[in-house]
Amino acid sequence: MRESINNNDRAEVLVHALPYIQAYQGKTVVVKYGGNAMINAELKAAVIQDLILMSCVGIRTVLVHGGGPEIESMLSSLGKESRFVQGLRYTDEETMEIVQMVLCGKVNKDITALIQQAGGKAMGLCGIDGGLLLGRLLKSAGEDLGLVGEIETVNASILETVLGSGAIPVVSSVALGTGDAKGHILNVNADTAAAQIAVAIKAEKLILITDVQGILRNVQDPDSLIKRLPRSELENLKKQGVVSKGMIPKTECCSLALDGGVKKAHIIDGRLPHALLIELFTDEGIGTMIEA
Amino acid sequence: MRESINNNDRAEVLVHALPYIQAYQGKTVVVKYGGNAMINAELKAAVIQDLILMSCVGIRTVLVHGGGPEIESMLSSLGKESRFVQGLRYTDEETMEIVQMVLCGKVNKDITALIQQAGGKAMGLCGIDGGLLLGRLLKSAGEDLGLVGEIETVNASILETVLGSGAIPVVSSVALGTGDAKGHILNVNADTAAAQIAVAIKAEKLILITDVQGILRNVQDPDSLIKRLPRSELENLKKQGVVSKGMIPKTECCSLALDGGVKKAHIIDGRLPHALLIELFTDEGIGTMIEA
Amino acid sequence: MRESINNNDRAEVLVHALPYIQAYQGKTVVVKYGGNAMINAELKAAVIQDLILMSCVGIRTVLVHGGGPEIESMLSSLGKESRFVQGLRYTDEETMEIVQMVLCGKVNKDITALIQQAGGKAMGLCGIDGGLLLGRLLKSAGEDLGLVGEIETVNASILETVLGSGAIPVVSSVALGTGDAKGHILNVNADTAAAQIAVAIKAEKLILITDVQGILRNVQDPDSLIKRLPRSELENLKKQGVVSKGMIPKTECCSLALDGGVKKAHIIDGRLPHALLIELFTDEGIGTMIEA
Amino acid sequence: MRESINNNDRAEVLVHALPYIQAYQGKTVVVKYGGNAMINAELKAAVIQDLILMSCVGIRTVLVHGGGPEIESMLSSLGKESRFVQGLRYTDEETMEIVQMVLCGKVNKDITALIQQAGGKAMGLCGIDGGLLLGRLLKSAGEDLGLVGEIETVNASILETVLGSGAIPVVSSVALGTGDAKGHILNVNADTAAAQIAVAIKAEKLILITDVQGILRNVQDPDSLIKRLPRSELENLKKQGVVSKGMIPKTECCSLALDGGVKKAHIIDGRLPHALLIELFTDEGIGTMIEA
Amino acid sequence: MRESINNNDRAEVLVHALPYIQAYQGKTVVVKYGGNAMINAELKAAVIQDLILMSCVGIRTVLVHGGGPEIESMLSSLGKESRFVQGLRYTDEETMEIVQMVLCGKVNKDITALIQQAGGKAMGLCGIDGGLLLGRLLKSAGEDLGLVGEIETVNASILETVLGSGAIPVVSSVALGTGDAKGHILNVNADTAAAQIAVAIKAEKLILITDVQGILRNVQDPDSLIKRLPRSELENLKKQGVVSKGMIPKTECCSLALDGGVKKAHIIDGRLPHALLIELFTDEGIGTMIEA
Amino acid sequence: MRESINNNDRAEVLVHALPYIQAYQGKTVVVKYGGNAMINAELKAAVIQDLILMSCVGIRTVLVHGGGPEIESMLSSLGKESRFVQGLRYTDEETMEIVQMVLCGKVNKDITALIQQAGGKAMGLCGIDGGLLLGRLLKSAGEDLGLVGEIETVNASILETVLGSGAIPVVSSVALGTGDAKGHILNVNADTAAAQIAVAIKAEKLILITDVQGILRNVQDPDSLIKRLPRSELENLKKQGVVSKGMIPKTECCSLALDGGVKKAHIIDGRLPHALLIELFTDEGIGTMIEA
Repeated sequence: MRESINNNDRAEVLVHALPYIQAYQGKTVVVKYGGNAMINAELKAAVIQDLILMSCVGIRTVLVHGGGPEIESMLSSLGKESRFVQGLRYTDEETMEIVQMVLCGKVNKDITALIQQAGGKAMGLCGIDGGLLLGRLLKSAGEDLGLVGEIETVNASILETVLGSGAIPVVSSVALGTGDAKGHILNVNADTAAAQIAVAIKAEKLILITDVQGILRNVQDPDSLIKRLPRSELENLKKQGVVSKGMIPKTECCSLALDGGVKKAHIIDGRLPHALLIELFTDEGIGTMIEA
Repeated sequence: MRESINNNDRAEVLVHALPYIQAYQGKTVVVKYGGNAMINAELKAAVIQDLILMSCVGIRTVLVHGGGPEIESMLSSLGKESRFVQGLRYTDEETMEIVQMVLCGKVNKDITALIQQAGGKAMGLCGIDGGLLLGRLLKSAGEDLGLVGEIETVNASILETVLGSGAIPVVSSVALGTGDAKGHILNVNADTAAAQIAVAIKAEKLILITDVQGILRNVQDPDSLIKRLPRSELENLKKQGVVSKGMIPKTECCSLALDGGVKKAHIIDGRLPHALLIELFTDEGIGTMIEA
Repeated sequence: MRESINNNDRAEVLVHALPYIQAYQGKTVVVKYGGNAMINAELKAAVIQDLILMSCVGIRTVLVHGGGPEIESMLSSLGKESRFVQGLRYTDEETMEIVQMVLCGKVNKDITALIQQAGGKAMGLCGIDGGLLLGRLLKSAGEDLGLVGEIETVNASILETVLGSGAIPVVSSVALGTGDAKGHILNVNADTAAAQIAVAIKAEKLILITDVQGILRNVQDPDSLIKRLPRSELENLKKQGVVSKGMIPKTECCSLALDGGVKKAHIIDGRLPHALLIELFTDEGIGTMIEA
Repeated sequence: MRESINNNDRAEVLVHALPYIQAYQGKTVVVKYGGNAMINAELKAAVIQDLILMSCVGIRTVLVHGGGPEIESMLSSLGKESRFVQGLRYTDEETMEIVQMVLCGKVNKDITALIQQAGGKAMGLCGIDGGLLLGRLLKSAGEDLGLVGEIETVNASILETVLGSGAIPVVSSVALGTGDAKGHILNVNADTAAAQIAVAIKAEKLILITDVQGILRNVQDPDSLIKRLPRSELENLKKQGVVSKGMIPKTECCSLALDGGVKKAHIIDGRLPHALLIELFTDEGIGTMIEA
Repeated sequence: MRESINNNDRAEVLVHALPYIQAYQGKTVVVKYGGNAMINAELKAAVIQDLILMSCVGIRTVLVHGGGPEIESMLSSLGKESRFVQGLRYTDEETMEIVQMVLCGKVNKDITALIQQAGGKAMGLCGIDGGLLLGRLLKSAGEDLGLVGEIETVNASILETVLGSGAIPVVSSVALGTGDAKGHILNVNADTAAAQIAVAIKAEKLILITDVQGILRNVQDPDSLIKRLPRSELENLKKQGVVSKGMIPKTECCSLALDGGVKKAHIIDGRLPHALLIELFTDEGIGTMIEA
Repeated sequence: MRESINNNDRAEVLVHALPYIQAYQGKTVVVKYGGNAMINAELKAAVIQDLILMSCVGIRTVLVHGGGPEIESMLSSLGKESRFVQGLRYTDEETMEIVQMVLCGKVNKDITALIQQAGGKAMGLCGIDGGLLLGRLLKSAGEDLGLVGEIETVNASILETVLGSGAIPVVSSVALGTGDAKGHILNVNADTAAAQIAVAIKAEKLILITDVQGILRNVQDPDSLIKRLPRSELENLKKQGVVSKGMIPKTECCSLALDGGVKKAHIIDGRLPHALLIELFTDEGIGTMIEA
């Protein structure tokens, strides 16, 4: 904290956040956590503080996380090479075991530990627990991707149990197979899982923490950030090429949530510390907010 | 809000308040509201914001208020003159009616309206409601003071009902007479009422909003503020003359609360905006904190 | 109690009231209290007993009161003169302050004190508390009436909280301004407030305590009292001149309640002691009952 | 109802009962029902009304009944003769079957039907249901009395379930055998059962409806009724012969209840209609009240 | 238990029952109990064990019983002769008294006692209690049958109270008269009562314990048992004469339940010990299951 | 299931288990799962069925698991060699990461998946979640063992939350470091964790699934199994050498539980299918039961 911020200013800042706190109290917010904000220790600590503060002021906060880099690193330690099908990694049994172990055992519990140690309360879960995420095998253009799945059912009741006990559910994106996939555990996309969970739990907001600023009208110009956007304009922006490449799956994820009844979806920049708090509790926010 | 405070600073301020929020969440704080902070419109608005924020972050907040100046003004409008007995105003039937009307009908409901209009939830009460404060006639050195009372019983259950509904109880310091005073409504001291309520409701803190900085070692030197004080040293300070004059009843009030199980009593300066938030949510605080 | 009533008779009376008690238990009854029954001390004591008995046998009882004479008397003590617009008193800021003070601080708390002292449990409220009554400025034929308001929203949840705690809510008819009237407190008609509250809380009955016998077919003939009346006949009676003058707003109030789902509206004679009990717990009742 | 009781008187009577209603609301009263009040149809109807009214005003009412005359009549219809041991009827298997059938199947369900038809809610039980009364064989001076039992354990939880559902438990005095008596159903004394139930359910009052006025100082003089009596004086009265013969077991029953924590035990005259209401809701009451 | 069943086999049996337990847990099953299973002591003990086990594994179990033979026997002991109208026994006042006494006082309480003594929890009720069964007089082809009734209303709330307390409701089939029959207690058919109760309580299953194997395609051939049957085929089977004589009222009872929303109705053979458990917890079951 | 077990036998087996089900219903049982029963797929499936059945009949079941072999295998895949200190594996940071990943991510979630797929409900947790297990560094004879910990505090509230939702908590034995170990995750002994959890949650039973028969009087003679043992005799048996080697830590674990208030501790043979059910639901049981 800079020395220059005196107590009066501090009080003003708190009071300034009040209307936002009042607006979100008792509402549910699903946060998808990934990218730099999960690698850099300082950014990580800031996210943890943000989550605890959100929970403290009565926002029912659900965290869904990915874990790509840690999986990569474990696969390479084990000398396991990856095969790609249509640009997607083929997930064989052995790879799936590693994915499960790293996501549910390492990344998930490390986040949970950080929240607990910072004085918050958290509970680490995955799609297996209480049958939270039930999935089937994903077929991409008819190609076999191994144990990559898509979610068929979200049983949100376990999240209600955890939220009801005052804890933040921290969710790894693996699903329990049903139908053809019965007896298997599946690797599912974390962004999509977050969106489907947001729908199932009737969330007010879905917030995707990414490694970009948000949607830029001109990708070269950081000042061209679109702050608010109705969902109905997404198609246009895609046609105009404003939404392109990596931004496409992110916005599809937002659309999925908004079409399912979530009020607002946010794409924010996880490279800035406390991006969550700034988006939630200040006037201008940070990143792009898409409204239903 | 000054332009110079950017979003990063704002986030830092919020995060900085987090450990305090965590510490007080679910605890009860009784605030005695009076003096300048109740006269000056800007200070008043700041107190209202502070109370709503406290309530928002899960602090069970009870407000007890006085209303001397407004009573004076109404008495003089009505051409009613006061008689004093041993320095205390004699309260005849007619004066008591005015006191009750101004406190319970004007001051109390105006505060309640301000909280409601700022998006909070409040409920205006007095000692009569649900038998909250039951009192008998106060005899000072054997002299008759009319309908001045002292509190015999606090029935905190009505406050639990109000707090349980998510509202801030706003309490006027009039009591329902029992025993000799049965059938009368009594004027009781608001500071003492706040302390007795804090004991009855097992509050964590009693905070007195006053028109002084706190306890100064040297009353001439504003830098001599005593920030923390064990209750056990109060007697010494009184003997040394550090605690004197108007500060004596304030500290007696604090002692009453601390002896009854309240953990901490604070004397803070209501002439500074957001004194409540600064005392609760910053490291140095403001004013004097007396610990049990 | 007359000597002539022996214990057998007493038992018979109690048993006779049983079917009425069974019928109303758990139901909500809103009572508008005003007129002579509020001025005469003996009548007042009887109303208080009636309310406590109703509450005791499980009727969820809400009391709404006016306070015209006490307001008049305070205005005249303060030398404040009234201006009338189309027969309605113009309520300037200063008058409104007096109205609020007298209603919420004096009349309301005095009734509450009487209930508490008679062994009942009551809680004095006004439309400000918990945002119970939200209103806008009333424009009568385009004329400005000052701070006279009409109710836009009734937030009955605070009444549920109070009733749930076993207390009788005692309600003063002032409202919190919204829209144009934001920041103001408004004077609203107590009869209408009672009717709107009855609708909002899904009351079984609205009972207006008045200074007349009820609706008389021939206003000269006390024996011409109409005991039961379907709501549908009110228009006819108005055309015939049977319902006229002061009875018109009373019946409009009843219509408002009945159209909003209240089952029965009663106009009873507050000049008779225990009019409430007689209307509720005897075969013939007293006054006029209008049925939906 | 006599014509001479007008509505004002009715209201006065109701209001007069108010302090008693307030005093007993939420308290438990166990009534032992027997004698003339159970034979005469008019008295019976009055008792039913009294019980419903008690229940209606929030008194948790438990009814325990006997059934001597109906058992006699069935035994004689079946040509079954009785053998007596030390003045007590020897209860063989066949007699016990009749006792059970008449008490639990006839008397109990008839009372329950009367309460239901009068608009009340009741549930007929016996000591078998939910293991309410567990008993062993009673040995009187070493003599075998067959299936006559004494109660060892009262499991009041089933009564709490019934009371909690708003119904009046109507209890037949048969017990489930334990120990030596395992596998048998036992005949237990209804007065004693009522007293033991009153203790187990922490009743405020035990009321025995009998065929006498109460305890008379001079059994010849109906004006010598003792209205109030401390439990401590019972021994003296027994020595003086004031308490004698049939009154001895009644007072022993009262002592049993009082010693177990019941506040007051009443012996009232069931030959007067509404004796229960008069005892509970009037100043002088009826019968004798023994206080702990 | 045969010596030949070792612990491994025991474990296998328990595990084998698991899917059935999982399927019925939390569901309601209404069992109609009668015939041999109620006369033979060994069969009786087995039914009691079955009921307790069902209740133990979380099946909400309601028992409805008849009692023909015991009623016959009591009528003959009393030298009471029966008159028949169209093959149905005319029930006069005196007969009804006997029916009520035997069913509610003897049969009902004996079953309840057996459950309690075997470590279960039960509560004996009849249609009078809490107004469970309200009926009117049954007119068969215009003939007067005396106090034979048909059920008009089932107030299942009392069963919910009993089930909620963890006890098995044991229900005698007598009803409280309404309308013409007001003031009377009526004799109602136990099978029909069971079906109507199953509908009112939204049961999963109705199970009729009978003295036959189930529906046989060829009544001479015990191997021709129909194990499963859609409700829609009942009419056909009746036309074909497969369902005939005593089986007709049984299947009509099943139809009544299924048409009212019950999922499955079973006709099982009470002459085999543990028929209930075998039907519920084994693959092949026993008897005939009719599906909606 | 052998063909030779007919339906009658099945019913008998179920009924035979009834008294045990009645005895344990609503009680808490902590099961430590490890050894062969966790490696062999068939044994594993049997344990899963046992756990679901226990949960189904109302036993509050908590599963604590180890995972030695799977950790070994992953360490060797990664080419990580172990250093031993006084016979205990030194756990460096990197090893701890593997332990955590394998236990919490692989073993824990695989068990959870099996329970869910078999129709049960489970939730996989570790000591980090909700601060379930807080530990400090274990010093063995002053030697540094790296991140090996001992449990200081068990916060059972999270287990109550999970049990309350009807799920089986499946717990991995890693703890969150406090004091010196703050910021670290610790490896704790699973047997001890099970015992400490059993104490904290006031369990009725602790059951250790092992790879031995139980305590044998003569380790060479399988027929010398001690079936029941008072805790007080354990010391003697140790002196006599009957309890020796690997059995010593097992019995210390049992003592820890029994001394903390657990009623019974069982050492059972996980190499037999359904050892849990046999121990709980048959007369002779299996293995050794030690009683407090």
